[in-house]
Amino acid sequence: MDERIHEHAAVLVDWSARIDPGDNVVVSVAEGAHELGVAVAEAVGERGGTLLAVNDSAELSRAYLQGRAAGNTDFDDAPAHELAMLEATDVYLRLGGGRNTAATADVPSETRQAARRARTEVREARLATDWVSTVHPTRSLAQQAGMSFEAYQDFVYNAVLRDWESLADEMAQLKTILDEGESVHIETPTTDLRLSIENRTAVNSTASVADDSHNLPSGEVFTAPADANGTITFDLPRTVDGTRLVNVEFTIENNEVVDYAADQGEETLGELLETDDGASRLGELGIGMNRGIDRITDRILFDEKMAETIHLAIGRAYDACLPDGETGNESAIHVDLLADMSTDSRLAVDGEVIQRNGSFRWEEGFTEESTG
Amino acid sequence: MDERIHEHAAVLVDWSARIDPGDNVVVSVAEGAHELGVAVAEAVGERGGTLLAVNDSAELSRAYLQGRAAGNTDFDDAPAHELAMLEATDVYLRLGGGRNTAATADVPSETRQAARRARTEVREARLATDWVSTVHPTRSLAQQAGMSFEAYQDFVYNAVLRDWESLADEMAQLKTILDEGESVHIETPTTDLRLSIENRTAVNSTASVADDSHNLPSGEVFTAPADANGTITFDLPRTVDGTRLVNVEFTIENNEVVDYAADQGEETLGELLETDDGASRLGELGIGMNRGIDRITDRILFDEKMAETIHLAIGRAYDACLPDGETGNESAIHVDLLADMSTDSRLAVDGEVIQRNGSFRWEEGFTEESTG
Repeated sequence: MDERIHEHAAVLVDWSARIDPGDNVVVSVAEGAHELGVAVAEAVGERGGTLLAVNDSAELSRAYLQGRAAGNTDFDDAPAHELAMLEATDVYLRLGGGRNTAATADVPSETRQAARRARTEVREARLATDWVSTVHPTRSLAQQAGMSFEAYQDFVYNAVLRDWESLADEMAQLKTILDEGESVHIETPTTDLRLSIENRTAVNSTASVADDSHNLPSGEVFTAPADANGTITFDLPRTVDGTRLVNVEFTIENNEVVDYAADQGEETLGELLETDDGASRLGELGIGMNRGIDRITDRILFDEKMAETIHLAIGRAYDACLPDGETGNESAIHVDLLADMSTDSRLAVDGEVIQRNGSFRWEEGFTEESTG
Repeated sequence: MDERIHEHAAVLVDWSARIDPGDNVVVSVAEGAHELGVAVAEAVGERGGTLLAVNDSAELSRAYLQGRAAGNTDFDDAPAHELAMLEATDVYLRLGGGRNTAATADVPSETRQAARRARTEVREARLATDWVSTVHPTRSLAQQAGMSFEAYQDFVYNAVLRDWESLADEMAQLKTILDEGESVHIETPTTDLRLSIENRTAVNSTASVADDSHNLPSGEVFTAPADANGTITFDLPRTVDGTRLVNVEFTIENNEVVDYAADQGEETLGELLETDDGASRLGELGIGMNRGIDRITDRILFDEKMAETIHLAIGRAYDACLPDGETGNESAIHVDLLADMSTDSRLAVDGEVIQRNGSFRWEEGFTEESTG
């Protein structure tokens, strides 16, 4: 077995999930994630966790939903066996990595939606555990990323096998700046956007449940803007519900998208913005800081953490960013859109430039004057 | 997908497990049983069961136990997540079929034993559900049986895809004879054994939870002898704990094996008989009636149901065969040994021949006089 699979498992159970002896651990293994499952099982055993492995096969799910569609679509919204399991689970490790990203493409959408609605309680019970989501590199995901399998494995392990403690410290600096700051100004040749972040709390997304961060890899700092005004171009592509959005442009007034355009996917973008009242307002400003991620692979788990990028989300804000008792932007959607900050860019907080051309002010290569 | 996989799934959920709408169903899928898992998931969905799929990978188990052996062998004997799941489960379907029957061969035996001991409560909780065990034909099992993959698939589906209702009716005839009978006499050129079955109840093993029968395939009628005297040769081979037992011969007096021999595995046989007091006494007489099983494949799930064979077990008797309040033979072991009854044989109950040369008296081909 590739030694990096064992290293991935060790980061997952030690840094991310912090497994202790006696923890009841559920490991959910996708069709193509068997090898990572084996490495994680060994690591859980070594740490003295009690293992229960769940089968997360997209082909099984598709067959079950097709059977339901043909026979009985009256889904139980409180499946006793699964809920009872989750309620007694300390740590839930989700190992993604299928063999076909389109494995469930032919499930009728009404069946899919009914199944998803019925899983609200299950989802909440899972989110109440110390859960962590990661992916094992598979040929299917390499294909989705447009990469060879070897190159994709290198990509995933570069993103996952970081010095997380050091990255967490670096991100903490940015969190402090954002927590203390009142306004953010983002500038590129096609972007000039000001956001208010007064009284908001930034989240240091360290890939560890200790920081309430549940993705591996992670490596972003994010907050919830209170107000936004200006224009922005999202020059990194994003696929949403099967539609590719390319070069999305927003004009934003009083935190509301008042004009939009896109080179590709403009109709889908319009539908997204009209989902509900909150869908045309911003719910998140995120700043990618994972230098192990060097390219967009059209998988948000990786893309939004890529260093030298920022993302804004239309839709729902995260409670963790809001003052106690305050409600942030509410919406049924949360769609991240990404912009490149590697060249000709400035990110300033309260008028002070904290990142220029992709380099933070505490990094080598940061220059006081823009070279752009 | 081979249409027989769907037929196997249909027999499993309809005849064996009797799944009703709303049932909480756990499907445990072995490494090589993915296709059967997919077919079963679809069938469970069609019947309106609520599916939770569990990963039963021998490689994951091995890795977990190796991790435990290296780090922490203090197993939890009441794993809350797994027990809670099982206690809320109506139907548990175990789909065997690995990719390597030796996948766990290098786990230290003390770790394996400690893990097994700690799973007593889990096992009991699983046995309290409407559980059914079956296997998907894999290349690994074909190899174990010494058969090509194609031939092994034919073998498994011949065994599983029976007219179970008709076979259950036929087996019920034998059950009635055994329930009403007081003594059994087994004769072949190398066997002359008399067993008392007075006041014992035979079990009609129909492969359906409705008859408290939990294996698919099944197709045997068995009871617990109260006494046995005579000699018997088990001329069909059996592998126990990795040792092949060939041509085992017993001399039995007052239900106790007083002399034994074997062409192969005699030492292991001796150790088995000395496990405890009950290990040298008989716990079961079983009569195979599944005519879909036409050869020994060294897998007891199939072998003991093969038509024109009988088996006796040394060790523990099944409670279902005993009068209320009576304790049968007690032992930590239950090892089935098989004898061919296809030629030169007679099976008589209370002096009346009910099977001769493999044919029951209600079957075509049964002759009043022995041709042997």
